[in-house]
Amino acid sequence: MSLDQLPDDHYRPTYEDIHISIGQSARKIKDEFDPDLMVAIGGGGFYPARVLRTFLKKPSALDPNKLRNIPIQAIGLSLYEEVSGTSEGQIGNEVVRTQWLDAKTVSGHKGAAKLEEGKDAGGLLGKNVLIVDEVDDSRTTLQYAYSELLKDVKHAIANLSDDERAALPPTRFAIFVVHNKEKTGGKRGTLPILAADLPKGADKIVDGVSEGVRYYTTQDTGDVWISYPWEEEDIVEHNRLAALAKKLQVNQAK
Amino acid sequence: MSLDQLPDDHYRPTYEDIHISIGQSARKIKDEFDPDLMVAIGGGGFYPARVLRTFLKKPSALDPNKLRNIPIQAIGLSLYEEVSGTSEGQIGNEVVRTQWLDAKTVSGHKGAAKLEEGKDAGGLLGKNVLIVDEVDDSRTTLQYAYSELLKDVKHAIANLSDDERAALPPTRFAIFVVHNKEKTGGKRGTLPILAADLPKGADKIVDGVSEGVRYYTTQDTGDVWISYPWEEEDIVEHNRLAALAKKLQVNQAK
Repeated sequence: MSLDQLPDDHYRPTYEDIHISIGQSARKIKDEFDPDLMVAIGGGGFYPARVLRTFLKKPSALDPNKLRNIPIQAIGLSLYEEVSGTSEGQIGNEVVRTQWLDAKTVSGHKGAAKLEEGKDAGGLLGKNVLIVDEVDDSRTTLQYAYSELLKDVKHAIANLSDDERAALPPTRFAIFVVHNKEKTGGKRGTLPILAADLPKGADKIVDGVSEGVRYYTTQDTGDVWISYPWEEEDIVEHNRLAALAKKLQVNQAK
Repeated sequence: MSLDQLPDDHYRPTYEDIHISIGQSARKIKDEFDPDLMVAIGGGGFYPARVLRTFLKKPSALDPNKLRNIPIQAIGLSLYEEVSGTSEGQIGNEVVRTQWLDAKTVSGHKGAAKLEEGKDAGGLLGKNVLIVDEVDDSRTTLQYAYSELLKDVKHAIANLSDDERAALPPTRFAIFVVHNKEKTGGKRGTLPILAADLPKGADKIVDGVSEGVRYYTTQDTGDVWISYPWEEEDIVEHNRLAALAKKLQVNQAK
């Protein structure tokens, strides 16, 4: 193949493209949702969560002149990541947990005193929780992650004393994915996504938990094959092909 | 400041520099250790673990013609990451767990049948476990992670039946960090690092566990300030300064 030809129709964002896009989304997320912690879905959510954290710092409870990183909790879900080269068509619907949060982590609001020392163990109760993944394809994994975390949170709230429950701020979830693929025929999974223009705090809270979820992505894409830089063995070639596609104005997100 | 001046003496690797270096280390790690799973120390270990996974695929048990991603388990340890702008001198020795592996995950060899279906839950027993972090600075976090995981593994092995224990392959640990900072006066933490030229399988196994740990890094650096790309709000400026430092042949790793 000649050097001015593309080998396929993959969309190839570079690290820099994605870093910049995440930074732009982060400003919106900070304004509208201001997350207290992230739950990264591994392995795809690890890189976006790490970059997001750079943009989502909060003033330290110990020293308000300093900025504090927000905690990242990780969960592991397998859907079509196990076997490299598996196409989506070959994939079952089943989501397999490879890692999850323990009950103590979910109900971690009791570590509130520890937060003051900069040592919050990252519990979910009473927090704004941002679930982070790489791509929203079929939405199956995201539906699973959101609904299972919600179930855990409701269970933990039910186990609180009346006093604790009364003192607890609302628990809210939002989702961030680098790319949201628009699927002809719709997504297999569903999420109770709040209207994008809903003002901050205007969501309905029932039994201490928001009824909906804010949804953020750097970009809605067509149903294209996305080659992420962290999946590439040859990053130099990846960047060369990305630049060539931009120059030729082909193989972009839409 | 003029455009041909550097604002400080930080070492600024780019995403591409680090991706390429991780790929090179991965080939060595694959040859000598061939990890079955990774334990990423969050948040710093998330990006390196995700990139390493691209280079450390294994043939699928289901279909040996396909390559399978190895699982990544995440742990959260806080030392000097809580407060942005904290210098190392201000840091206590204390390592705080913000996330850990549950006992079921540690003793996950019992999911061996599930591995055959490509659904290994990522247990540690009988595996080659690669602990991944961003930088080895004082070595305090790495010592903690290694010694605590080792303790959990020994405990889980002690709880096996005699038959299970007899059937279990050795459990081995290795460590990968993007950079290892050489410290004048030595590191605060210690690790039982195996000789770099020790042949594969020549380590001493006691009660089912290797006595030492293989240690990998893309680079030993001086005691320099490393600015990682994922920590930067302005990645374009980061790359410009990285290119300028290379051109001026200053602020490199050593």
